[in-house]
Amino acid sequence: MNILKIGGSVLNKLEEFELKADLIVHGGSDYVDALCERLGIEIKKLTSPSGVEFRYTPKEVLEVYLMAVMKANKDIVTHLQSRGINAVGLSGLDFGIVKAKRKRIIKAVIDGKKVVIRDDYSGKIENIDTSTLIELMNLGIPVIAPIAMSETFEPLNVDGDKLAKEIALSLEADELTFLSDTAFLVNGEVVDRIRAEELEEFLPFAEGGMKRKLLMARTALEGGVKKVTIQGLNGRTVIE
Amino acid sequence: MNILKIGGSVLNKLEEFELKADLIVHGGSDYVDALCERLGIEIKKLTSPSGVEFRYTPKEVLEVYLMAVMKANKDIVTHLQSRGINAVGLSGLDFGIVKAKRKRIIKAVIDGKKVVIRDDYSGKIENIDTSTLIELMNLGIPVIAPIAMSETFEPLNVDGDKLAKEIALSLEADELTFLSDTAFLVNGEVVDRIRAEELEEFLPFAEGGMKRKLLMARTALEGGVKKVTIQGLNGRTVIE
Repeated sequence: MNILKIGGSVLNKLEEFELKADLIVHGGSDYVDALCERLGIEIKKLTSPSGVEFRYTPKEVLEVYLMAVMKANKDIVTHLQSRGINAVGLSGLDFGIVKAKRKRIIKAVIDGKKVVIRDDYSGKIENIDTSTLIELMNLGIPVIAPIAMSETFEPLNVDGDKLAKEIALSLEADELTFLSDTAFLVNGEVVDRIRAEELEEFLPFAEGGMKRKLLMARTALEGGVKKVTIQGLNGRTVIE
Repeated sequence: MNILKIGGSVLNKLEEFELKADLIVHGGSDYVDALCERLGIEIKKLTSPSGVEFRYTPKEVLEVYLMAVMKANKDIVTHLQSRGINAVGLSGLDFGIVKAKRKRIIKAVIDGKKVVIRDDYSGKIENIDTSTLIELMNLGIPVIAPIAMSETFEPLNVDGDKLAKEIALSLEADELTFLSDTAFLVNGEVVDRIRAEELEEFLPFAEGGMKRKLLMARTALEGGVKKVTIQGLNGRTVIE
């Protein structure tokens, strides 16, 4: 079984990839940013004290996030259906497939100062309803948008890479593939293959989204996934 | 089996209704209008030569339409989940459940003159995949947004009332219920009950959305649906 994560940066380049998957998770950052801009809503990307960048998602941004990622969701479904692949687009809200706990207090570093944020609607994934996912996979390919349901029934922004990894682990998938604009580069060269044992040595060469993908690959491999691929437009990095 | 249509005007008043249904179809006009306004996109409602009002949906509006109705879709799903009702939100694009033919030429009357419109993305419903709907109803309550897939895999705007009626007929449902802000009024009084045989006499008293609902009721009853209810905040009209 292969879980495929489609990154927001390649949503407009889907025809350049072969989309072989049993289940798809996607992002939508570019769509969210574009809609925020059109609506005159400030896009804030914050950095956690541990150096991980995240989207600041107050209520107003959450609504835009939901609309934009569902547009991405339907674009992917339409693309797949046009290729004869029977797909169904869902969010984690549907059937309550993805449950998350709202991060009520988030710490960020702004201009070198630690600040506490309390109005953010991001979630930590807590539960995946695998039995419903399996039922759906019998009907077609589920395409899941990165929105989870909180314990008090609020939609929450969750990271697409993390969601793909969590679903791969829950379904005990063999493969996890990230579609992205670039494969993993070190000194401008694509790293074709990384053995699980040497993954740690490569982490210092990765930044931002790529660092997150390598970290997801590490936990996925530790959890039983056999192969993680970062498929870029410039080549691929296979980690196994 | 009861098919429930939730009108766009009552999306913010869901707690005032009892939502008993096997499948839900919804609208989202108010959401679409609000997002168009925020984006500075002109909202044009046109009138056909036969007097039926419709939303002019060029490509730019179609994208907004899709985002806004999917927001409505997830609002309904979240509401139902919070009440312990297992629901899944879909559009007609998903699994290709609703297929429609794009209306390539639309006639409208503007300032008393007939005009021909060629860039509209509205569709005439052609096929409902009932077997997939039945499979989904075994898993929870499907909540369907009024977006269909064209024969060339484009999303199309379809009327929610019509979609509800077509689904009721395809699934051979006994009941079709429209949730709306008002039940059917004649001289300011709610008409409680209309027998199918006398429906024709009531048509001249209805306008706009209510006229469309009575026409949908007529075809639904002719097609085997036993009871059509227009449930408003001010009472209900039962047609059987």
